[in-house]
Amino acid sequence: MPALEVNPDLQKERNTATFDPHEFSVYWAGGEERYKEKKALEKLFLEDPALKDDLPTSYMSHKELYENSLRKACLIGEKIRKLRADGEDGVDTYNALLGGSLGAALLKEGNPLSLHYVMFVPTIMGQGTMDQQVEWLPKAWDCEIIGTYAQTELGHGTFLRGLETRADYDASTQEFVINTPTRSAYKWWPGGLGHTANHAVVVAQLYTKGEFRGLAPFIVQLRDLETHQPMKGIDIGDIGTKLGMKGVNNGYLGLKNVRVPLNNMLMKNQQVLPDGTYVAPKNSVLTYGTMMFVRCALIRDTAYSLSKASTIATRYSAVRRQSPIDPSQPEPQIMDHTTQQLKLFPQIAKAIVFKTTGDGIWSMYNVLSGEIELGNLDRLPEMHALSCCLKAICSADATAGVETCRLSCGGHGYMDCSNFPTIYGMTTAVCTYEGENTVMLLQTARYLVKVYGQALNGEQLVPTVAYINEAIKLQEFVNFDGSLESIVKAFQFVAANKVRVAYEQIEVRRKQGHGVEVSANLSGPLLTSAADLHGRAFLAQSAYTELTQVAKHVSPALADVLKVVLELYLVDACLNRIGDFLRFINLTDKDVTNLETRLESCLNRLRPNAVALVDSFDLHDRVLDSALGAYDGNVYERIFESTKKNPLNKEPVNAAFHKYLKPFMKANL
Amino acid sequence: MPALEVNPDLQKERNTATFDPHEFSVYWAGGEERYKEKKALEKLFLEDPALKDDLPTSYMSHKELYENSLRKACLIGEKIRKLRADGEDGVDTYNALLGGSLGAALLKEGNPLSLHYVMFVPTIMGQGTMDQQVEWLPKAWDCEIIGTYAQTELGHGTFLRGLETRADYDASTQEFVINTPTRSAYKWWPGGLGHTANHAVVVAQLYTKGEFRGLAPFIVQLRDLETHQPMKGIDIGDIGTKLGMKGVNNGYLGLKNVRVPLNNMLMKNQQVLPDGTYVAPKNSVLTYGTMMFVRCALIRDTAYSLSKASTIATRYSAVRRQSPIDPSQPEPQIMDHTTQQLKLFPQIAKAIVFKTTGDGIWSMYNVLSGEIELGNLDRLPEMHALSCCLKAICSADATAGVETCRLSCGGHGYMDCSNFPTIYGMTTAVCTYEGENTVMLLQTARYLVKVYGQALNGEQLVPTVAYINEAIKLQEFVNFDGSLESIVKAFQFVAANKVRVAYEQIEVRRKQGHGVEVSANLSGPLLTSAADLHGRAFLAQSAYTELTQVAKHVSPALADVLKVVLELYLVDACLNRIGDFLRFINLTDKDVTNLETRLESCLNRLRPNAVALVDSFDLHDRVLDSALGAYDGNVYERIFESTKKNPLNKEPVNAAFHKYLKPFMKANL
Repeated sequence: MPALEVNPDLQKERNTATFDPHEFSVYWAGGEERYKEKKALEKLFLEDPALKDDLPTSYMSHKELYENSLRKACLIGEKIRKLRADGEDGVDTYNALLGGSLGAALLKEGNPLSLHYVMFVPTIMGQGTMDQQVEWLPKAWDCEIIGTYAQTELGHGTFLRGLETRADYDASTQEFVINTPTRSAYKWWPGGLGHTANHAVVVAQLYTKGEFRGLAPFIVQLRDLETHQPMKGIDIGDIGTKLGMKGVNNGYLGLKNVRVPLNNMLMKNQQVLPDGTYVAPKNSVLTYGTMMFVRCALIRDTAYSLSKASTIATRYSAVRRQSPIDPSQPEPQIMDHTTQQLKLFPQIAKAIVFKTTGDGIWSMYNVLSGEIELGNLDRLPEMHALSCCLKAICSADATAGVETCRLSCGGHGYMDCSNFPTIYGMTTAVCTYEGENTVMLLQTARYLVKVYGQALNGEQLVPTVAYINEAIKLQEFVNFDGSLESIVKAFQFVAANKVRVAYEQIEVRRKQGHGVEVSANLSGPLLTSAADLHGRAFLAQSAYTELTQVAKHVSPALADVLKVVLELYLVDACLNRIGDFLRFINLTDKDVTNLETRLESCLNRLRPNAVALVDSFDLHDRVLDSALGAYDGNVYERIFESTKKNPLNKEPVNAAFHKYLKPFMKANL
Repeated sequence: MPALEVNPDLQKERNTATFDPHEFSVYWAGGEERYKEKKALEKLFLEDPALKDDLPTSYMSHKELYENSLRKACLIGEKIRKLRADGEDGVDTYNALLGGSLGAALLKEGNPLSLHYVMFVPTIMGQGTMDQQVEWLPKAWDCEIIGTYAQTELGHGTFLRGLETRADYDASTQEFVINTPTRSAYKWWPGGLGHTANHAVVVAQLYTKGEFRGLAPFIVQLRDLETHQPMKGIDIGDIGTKLGMKGVNNGYLGLKNVRVPLNNMLMKNQQVLPDGTYVAPKNSVLTYGTMMFVRCALIRDTAYSLSKASTIATRYSAVRRQSPIDPSQPEPQIMDHTTQQLKLFPQIAKAIVFKTTGDGIWSMYNVLSGEIELGNLDRLPEMHALSCCLKAICSADATAGVETCRLSCGGHGYMDCSNFPTIYGMTTAVCTYEGENTVMLLQTARYLVKVYGQALNGEQLVPTVAYINEAIKLQEFVNFDGSLESIVKAFQFVAANKVRVAYEQIEVRRKQGHGVEVSANLSGPLLTSAADLHGRAFLAQSAYTELTQVAKHVSPALADVLKVVLELYLVDACLNRIGDFLRFINLTDKDVTNLETRLESCLNRLRPNAVALVDSFDLHDRVLDSALGAYDGNVYERIFESTKKNPLNKEPVNAAFHKYLKPFMKANL
């Protein structure tokens, strides 16, 4: 499509914004240097014609989509190889290329080689001995072997202890014999496992000398390196089509008496000696670290999803005109409808808050990692609890936010050319993988209930839950004045009381004679909602701290906008949980009305800068891949353009007319 | 797949249920006779091998999917033709075959001929003169011509007055000249328009004698009946892939000086005489009737979606075992986790309440139709307001409910073989079509605010809003005792107060100098939430009335179950809006705790009958089309079975290995 002028309504928005989007873009990218790196990477990958699709993936069959995905994954892999040779590959580069930003522009339905880079190689690095790393890493880095990570099974996911795949050590040959003894033991889901990987780290229940030892990781060759035929005892394939991530080649794997040498068990943390003697890991909590690492990364991913969805919907809402507000006036930009603002602007605010919170958590995680290396595990349970509930809340909110944005675009959001369906598929998956959200909230809640008991005993609490102690002392929350500080404090007070209610309810059950676990199960809904409030209190505090801090270091114009974003985020968050606020804090009808009026005021004040804010997210048109959300705002032209790529439209009369419809029409004549 | 024994966990659930599902199934189908008709229709259509797909649609390309859909649509049309010849076609038959029940089993991504039956033919019947009906209906009924209904445009949907397509009457040739003058005037979305229909009812702005006359419907031939080539001036095609309804062949249509004879304007309500004289319709509100008819039908569709989703998730939750509640016990059925019950059971309850409410509204609509025919339009605004907000609430709740069910199945719900992605696509579309949900709520709200003014003036109010008058008198809600009656009354009191707040806020704006429309726009969020509460108060009342009534006429065993369903529905609905309750009613913390405890109790009491309840929905395995939800509960076997249909698994090594992956792996060697 030839370059088009920017839609005048959209241009007007940009002309009248009160701040410079570029300033925010640089902050958003992580500083001037990262911003430049980002732009360079975009140039390198997005201007390569071999990485552009003429046919959108939604028109392809599942098989075509896989083949095209693998083609492009190899081209990307080739470029990564070159970056690596030049020493220009870093964690940020891998994140961008394999994740939701640049990766989505290149392979919008996911990359069948992703797990090789983000799980197979890192697992060998993290869990292999130095010798094992020397043996496997060069081949893996050079992609002479392609790996994946096979843990989840058809019958078990989040509950790891339930995994059924087993590895029995045979000291006579110094081999492990790996089996998936039942159908539900089949490995299920690993990306690239279907037809792409020739190796996998397989997680199995370890038995030596006839005794159960717990879970252990094994490197297993799945396919012949020359012919790609499955190895003996390996039953392997693609699990089928899915709601999203359609190009990832998720696979299944059955193992029948598959033998691997002793040295294929990754032994950095635990060892099996040649005679079968088992040496337990010094520290079983180390694996928590990896899970936390991934969950922290996911929080930033959810911000990314929201930034994409809100950019598309906001730009569209500046271009689309519909339904007069005042019958004597022409149809307004739909963004002038207050109900539309209420759909869009909180998603923009959440994108920003989740991003800054994700960055903050990332820093906390790095500090913690250092402490763990030194053997100090004090803050591990606290961080684990926090990362669990934030993963759940941010993924659930982002999923809902993406759908709100889609629905705000009416029917056009339903078309694949809007890109909402793909963004939704990617985003909602986060609710399930790396720990299902309800399970995550229950893990946080278990920690909170324990902490509440400590608080009752007068013990001091660690920083992220210290508010519970304050709330216990406070008894009643007074002087709610609607200030941002006051909303943050109120969130903490409400969260503490939700924990109290869950704690007391469990105590009631126990007095009725139930065991502690059964009592906790009966109070499950109270526990999850307590964990939810804990996470939201943290987000409120984090939003306040981080954005106030950022505002101090940017231009006054940008600072003013960020203050409105913060206020909108907090007031909206409060109104979304107003039932809990009213239950535990003596708010009047007038207080609630004031909050509602302020919400409307925030929407109103953000309106002039909405387009500039999403422009600041600096998302390349290829990343957005949306007829509704392109930078130039030529929505209708781009929708039209998309119909030209539709294979059905390549011929005026489809063969099915002559084959089926015409005989049917003529049958009665 | 050979017939399998029922999964023992599922069988156990059936053995221990306290009521007979068949009794409820008969009620659900609408009585003994309809139940038999339903079974006969299922037999006729589902046992026809030509209507079974070997390849699931999710593996097909868009083009393959269309061709396969048209093939089956013609086979179904042939059977319909036969039923019609035998006098066995009724509204219920068309509903079943073209809608979400049997229709979904036959063409899960929708039928490209649906709009021919449900819009093209009925529009000619409803808006054509007797002469026009004689001319067009026989050909249409016999499918000698295939039609669709083209109203929505690329630039305008819900706001009909904004449509741009125009028809200018040329008295010199007694023809209309129809044009889509801009790109945004293109007709967009009509099902079957892309490559299937050869005729359409095109809605256009009518001009005669140079004067604008309003919207009118025209029959336009789109394609040659022999060659299927587009007619002169017709630009036509498929709009592209979408989130769901992928087989419907939604199309676009541009018209350039397309001339149709005078008689092609459907003239039952308004006429153009040969000289161009325009005769206005006697009653412009008649079109409201059709919209209301469709919205009432949609309420039942949302119940249908929920029944499907909850059946799949409930059966799966009886089969899947995961995460011990008590560590000393084996992993329980996941339905024993209270948090899982909270996901599933409210959806079952909503399916039942939406169905009975839909039936009730249907009866109200029929009474109203009779009144309108007699020229009595008194209840039209009331029914319009009610149908708008119920359409919005039920579609939004059903969409959320389907996703809750999907997420409750963890990763497996993400696979297409669960059928959740397709059910979601079908369900969420209802939020947008036939009146976008926010616009619907605003229409209801506009009515409510007007009514509130009448109430303040001491006027009597029509039945569905009479509670507003009571609430005004009441001032304060006292004696909330948690009884079901009390919850219903409290809902009405809260709804009335939400209307009051919106009304007062608009008054404040007006006193600030804003016009009434601008004031209403500023208060948009208050208006939509008032309409939401109005609809929910109606649903609460309807649930109470209808289910209490049904319980009187069924066996005591079934009546007991329905009472739990009702209580669960009301308590859950109340807790979901607890913020509004606490704001307007002086509830204590103890009151809320009591509601929470009752919710848990309801879940607990429903648990033994959950599987029997979803069995009662009597959904054929082909309708469910879900590896997770089949009647026999052989979840893992069916998931496995589904992978065998995957074209990628037909060969152990995909061609892309040799073409792309192997060269990439070897490049560095």
